[in-house]
Amino acid sequence: MKPTHIEHIGVAVKSIDEARKFYEEVLGLTCYSVEEIAEQKVKTAFFMVGQTKIELLEATSLESPVAKFIENKGQGIHHIAFAVTGLENWLTTTEGKGVQLIDKTPRCGAEGLDIAFLHPKSTGGVLIELCEDKNKK
Amino acid sequence: MKPTHIEHIGVAVKSIDEARKFYEEVLGLTCYSVEEIAEQKVKTAFFMVGQTKIELLEATSLESPVAKFIENKGQGIHHIAFAVTGLENWLTTTEGKGVQLIDKTPRCGAEGLDIAFLHPKSTGGVLIELCEDKNKK
Repeated sequence: MKPTHIEHIGVAVKSIDEARKFYEEVLGLTCYSVEEIAEQKVKTAFFMVGQTKIELLEATSLESPVAKFIENKGQGIHHIAFAVTGLENWLTTTEGKGVQLIDKTPRCGAEGLDIAFLHPKSTGGVLIELCEDKNKK
Repeated sequence: MKPTHIEHIGVAVKSIDEARKFYEEVLGLTCYSVEEIAEQKVKTAFFMVGQTKIELLEATSLESPVAKFIENKGQGIHHIAFAVTGLENWLTTTEGKGVQLIDKTPRCGAEGLDIAFLHPKSTGGVLIELCEDKNKK
C-alpha cells in the first residue's frame, strides 16, 4: 500500500491573478481550471506538469486556513497531496500507526476528489493530503 | 518550452533518521538512496512516488541553507524542482523575463543532475529549482 503519484502540490498565494503569471509566462504552463471551494474558503487555479498539478490557493476570507498560513509563514508551498487508492482504508491504517488525522473521514475537495489531511505534527512539519479520484474507482 | 514533470520535492528535516520513518512506515515508500552533498552542506534521502522524488534534506552544518530554513520556518517543504530540457537556455530566458536567479549558471546537484535555483522573490514565495538529467542529453 503506497501512493501512486504526487496528485498535486498546493501553493498559498495572496492573489491568483498575480501569481499565475509566473507559472504561465515563465514556466510556460497552462491554467486549465479556476474553481472556488466555498467550504474551504479558497479559490484555486490548476496547472498540469507531467502527472502532477500545481494548485494555487487564494483565501476568499480572512478565516481561511490559507489566509492564516500566509499571515504566519508568508506565501509559499502549502501542502503535498499523494494519490491513493482506498482512502478510507488509508485513514484507518494511518491513524492506527499513531498519525494524527485532520480529517478522520474523507471529504470532497477540489476537482471532485475525495480528500483528507494528515496533521503536520505527525509528518515532520509537512501538511500532507491523501486523495482519491472517485471517477477512477 | 515547459517543464516535463516535477523532478522532486525537497523537504527540510532535522533528522533524516527520524523523518524517514513516516515515508517508509506510513506511506510505504522505499528509500533508494542516501547521499551527502558537501558543497550544499546537506545530507539527502530519496523516495520515488510515480514520476517524482521526495528529497529529505538534513543540514550537515549550522551554515547550511537548510539549517537556516528550519531556524526561520521550522521543518517542512523547502522547494519544488521542475525537470527541464536545455537548462542553460532556460536560465537565460528566465532571467530575460525579469526573474531573479540564485544560480546564473547550472551547477551539480544531488544524483548528478544539473541544477539551478530561482529566487523566491520572483516566484511568489516558492523556492524553485530547475534541473536537467545530463545522462538523458
